[in-house]
Amino acid sequence: MAMAGQEATNRQIILKHYVEGIMVKESDFELRDSKVLLLLHPGNRDVLVRNIYLSLDAYLRLLLDPTADSPYDREKPFSPGEVITGYGVSKVLASNYPEFKPNDYVVGITGWEDYSVIKEASTLRKIPQIGLPLSYFLGVLGMPGLTAYAGFYKVALPKSGDQLLVSGAAGAIGHLVGQFGKLAGCYVVGTAGSEEKERIGYDDAFNYRGETDLKAALKRHFPKKIDIYWDNVGGKMLEAVLKNMNKLGQIPVCGMISDYNLAKPEGISNLFHIVTKSLRMQGFAVTEYEHLYEEFTERVSGLLKDKKLVYFEDVSEGLEKAPRALIDLFEGKNIGKKIVKICDPDCKSLIYHGPTL
Amino acid sequence: MAMAGQEATNRQIILKHYVEGIMVKESDFELRDSKVLLLLHPGNRDVLVRNIYLSLDAYLRLLLDPTADSPYDREKPFSPGEVITGYGVSKVLASNYPEFKPNDYVVGITGWEDYSVIKEASTLRKIPQIGLPLSYFLGVLGMPGLTAYAGFYKVALPKSGDQLLVSGAAGAIGHLVGQFGKLAGCYVVGTAGSEEKERIGYDDAFNYRGETDLKAALKRHFPKKIDIYWDNVGGKMLEAVLKNMNKLGQIPVCGMISDYNLAKPEGISNLFHIVTKSLRMQGFAVTEYEHLYEEFTERVSGLLKDKKLVYFEDVSEGLEKAPRALIDLFEGKNIGKKIVKICDPDCKSLIYHGPTL
Repeated sequence: MAMAGQEATNRQIILKHYVEGIMVKESDFELRDSKVLLLLHPGNRDVLVRNIYLSLDAYLRLLLDPTADSPYDREKPFSPGEVITGYGVSKVLASNYPEFKPNDYVVGITGWEDYSVIKEASTLRKIPQIGLPLSYFLGVLGMPGLTAYAGFYKVALPKSGDQLLVSGAAGAIGHLVGQFGKLAGCYVVGTAGSEEKERIGYDDAFNYRGETDLKAALKRHFPKKIDIYWDNVGGKMLEAVLKNMNKLGQIPVCGMISDYNLAKPEGISNLFHIVTKSLRMQGFAVTEYEHLYEEFTERVSGLLKDKKLVYFEDVSEGLEKAPRALIDLFEGKNIGKKIVKICDPDCKSLIYHGPTL
Repeated sequence: MAMAGQEATNRQIILKHYVEGIMVKESDFELRDSKVLLLLHPGNRDVLVRNIYLSLDAYLRLLLDPTADSPYDREKPFSPGEVITGYGVSKVLASNYPEFKPNDYVVGITGWEDYSVIKEASTLRKIPQIGLPLSYFLGVLGMPGLTAYAGFYKVALPKSGDQLLVSGAAGAIGHLVGQFGKLAGCYVVGTAGSEEKERIGYDDAFNYRGETDLKAALKRHFPKKIDIYWDNVGGKMLEAVLKNMNKLGQIPVCGMISDYNLAKPEGISNLFHIVTKSLRMQGFAVTEYEHLYEEFTERVSGLLKDKKLVYFEDVSEGLEKAPRALIDLFEGKNIGKKIVKICDPDCKSLIYHGPTL
């Protein structure tokens, strides 16, 4: 256990300066050592945690550049010199918040650092002990999982026999959507950005980077055209899909990652298919579906335990790897959920970096 | 009444050749005189009609150029030498179809000509005598009216206090949507392409052609941002609107007229607002809502008789004016529903062009 008043070295990933241009570079970040007192003062509702896993998520791109045309009201860009924050799994060391006590594991917004004092502890969720790995709560049992679950079952409204195209098919969300599609009786084609990611239990898959004519590729892969397009990428893929959709098709829009890295995103010039085919494009945020959390956890943990759902993780070990891991995510190099492991769940393996807990 | 076997001159508007380039020209059409026998042979279900009013509709643009990337399955482009067809109001001269008899007035797809033999009479609808002008069944009581009604009440799902932007605000559909918006308690701003069209009972209106910065114009007109955008135009206006939408906003997509006239439509590069604001873009076609026809007719004719709804028509007189009238529509010069009047409802005033009926 953390001892009151004990000082520890706290390694932190800091935004050195805003990203310039399109591509994020490791040199945009720096690893800084600071000292932290493993102590909570009374009179507040803070929680002191040891961070274990960090989640790498596409939305972070929008917070690295204040000139991005970002419409996210609730999230302000990071400031240079500030520690990066994002979803993580942590162990509680000390708590002034009644819901959490030392040794609890929690998931929520934390810092990219060894230790964090979390001021908005109400946004944390205690991780239940259900015999599945802690890291799953950043993915299949966390926000990406709920995004896939709610987006597929509540937004896409699938019917058996539907022709489903999943973009970002190898990603944290996409590889789950594809499997939900199979479970729902859909014909599922996945598309991703590299060869080795092509087949993760789909009926068919293709690497969009290998196609010079996306419209023709989709026509070939979907002789019956597309009923549901799980859009995680936007851009040219969306344009090609619009051309190949069936009437009354559904396009749940989970992300437009191809636009996040572009100073001037490519325009889509055939949106008139929305009218002429009576398509529905529905953007959604996982926060709108948090009321489904219990139903989701029960169903998805059941599928995992019954081995009807396979979950992929892509783990980088060491806090210092976080910037590179984030860039890998932006470059589409991951298979499954991209996370960083800072220390073992018992918080002992990287003990060198801090005091005995 | 038409006399069996009587021959009449039938003026016809013919597609001379396909439209080349973006703009439709009068020289793409020609007026041709032909002879027609005012006679139906037995053994079929044809209906012979005298055409009275023609409807000018934006979708016709897609049928004038076979190279257009048109996804309308059900409508093939016209062939050069063929008479133009579209919605019209007609008087039945002779009928082999049991539902119609001579002197009935009908609305449906007919030819741009004095007389038509309609082979698919099942698509015609008999016009009821409810004390409103016949021409209304091409507009406020026809497809445009039902489009406005179904799109607004069943797709846009308005709530009192919603901030509503209507594009194509002076058009056949738009000027009705704006008034439905006021009746539903919305704050309504209309936008159209000329000065004189600005105010038709809206809370506010602006001429988009007078704005160099559409995003700024919308910000000025909607300090509370936009909850519902009635999209009839697509293009740059949609792009500016996306930037100014409120979260969970609705975008019923009724048309993308700005794309119909363009060989290479302008791309929209900020669709990521659909994700980040959880917007719904829903294309729809009036044909999906024909089951509402009775409810719609009753409610809207009631509003018209009570003077709670004002209907605007923009009438060109004479069949020969039809090509110019269509071009005026494409150029956005109309206020209200654009129609061509071929003859008086009693079919006597233009008697010169045909035999006594």
